[in-house]
Amino acid sequence: MVVKSLWLKWRDEARSTFLKDIEIGYADRDIVPIVRSIFEKCQHVFTISSCSGRITVVDAPYPWVRKEATIIFKKHTAVMPEEIAPLLEQPCTHRLWIISSGPIIHFVADSIDNALKLLSIARESGFKHSGIISVREDGVVVELISGNWISMLLRDADQVIIDRAALPRVLTIFNDNLLEGKQRLQKLHQLIASSSL
Amino acid sequence: MVVKSLWLKWRDEARSTFLKDIEIGYADRDIVPIVRSIFEKCQHVFTISSCSGRITVVDAPYPWVRKEATIIFKKHTAVMPEEIAPLLEQPCTHRLWIISSGPIIHFVADSIDNALKLLSIARESGFKHSGIISVREDGVVVELISGNWISMLLRDADQVIIDRAALPRVLTIFNDNLLEGKQRLQKLHQLIASSSL
Repeated sequence: MVVKSLWLKWRDEARSTFLKDIEIGYADRDIVPIVRSIFEKCQHVFTISSCSGRITVVDAPYPWVRKEATIIFKKHTAVMPEEIAPLLEQPCTHRLWIISSGPIIHFVADSIDNALKLLSIARESGFKHSGIISVREDGVVVELISGNWISMLLRDADQVIIDRAALPRVLTIFNDNLLEGKQRLQKLHQLIASSSL
Repeated sequence: MVVKSLWLKWRDEARSTFLKDIEIGYADRDIVPIVRSIFEKCQHVFTISSCSGRITVVDAPYPWVRKEATIIFKKHTAVMPEEIAPLLEQPCTHRLWIISSGPIIHFVADSIDNALKLLSIARESGFKHSGIISVREDGVVVELISGNWISMLLRDADQVIIDRAALPRVLTIFNDNLLEGKQRLQKLHQLIASSSL
């Protein structure tokens, strides 16, 4: 079970990292208010890593590949056709995928009970793929993943797969998906703020 | 904490459901060997729902939507261009998405320790989005999700988004992704069989 002093120590370290990330401009803007409010108000959970959702273009065999993947574009806010269109025409090593992903946040709870409380709030906020991923002396780690992840193949080696004329329409959908993730994050923020966590 | 008699009762019920699903041909073929072997050999975990991975075409605002979605095509094995091409030309209510998803399995463990053991095996087999989703008197429910999920927008209302000539190439990629999921399932099967679970 969790030793509270170790959990508090971890929380202090995580808070320092978060404050440093803000200072050097590393933190993604849309995540700052929720993480800050969790550190200020919550007595039973804190966050260790988080992303508010983003649109990326990756050169990779599959959009879920990490090792062989190169991120060639990344933005935490809506994208415009003129930002993406030129990427279609460049040669790529593997395949070009555009991905719009919702928020992902890792929390550390001070007990399994509080981890389960957080999971219930997560589900209510649309973070459907969430669960406890480790139970240690210094805390119970909970991964919250919003289910709204979409990908699209843009180019396979030398062949453009998407109808170029359809790009603006595709990006509208990918931007709307990004916004949906940010709304789930707001809901999560509100529910955590009004909980006993 | 888990009461073993309640866990055993749940296991008996789950086994009956599984056997009935096989009898009526409801169970997906590629999942049967692993689920059967888990019921036969494992003393600490059993499965309650599972999918070996599949390719679907859905008519939905987003590929992750459940409520407003209509599945218009579903197959647990590789698909051919002639199966998908005609779907492109039909009008749709929302949008037409093709999805290739890896396996998803829900397990019930008889303790948190065994749930964590299972999670460690899951991660080693490529089931990266996995976690404990509930802790109850009758068992600890663990969701195992293979990360290899890909989607592609085929049609948005009246507009075909994909270059029709590229469809065979796209389907090769989607079939390969399906196969990758089945291989992860094999690995999971082997690791569970040689574990103490």
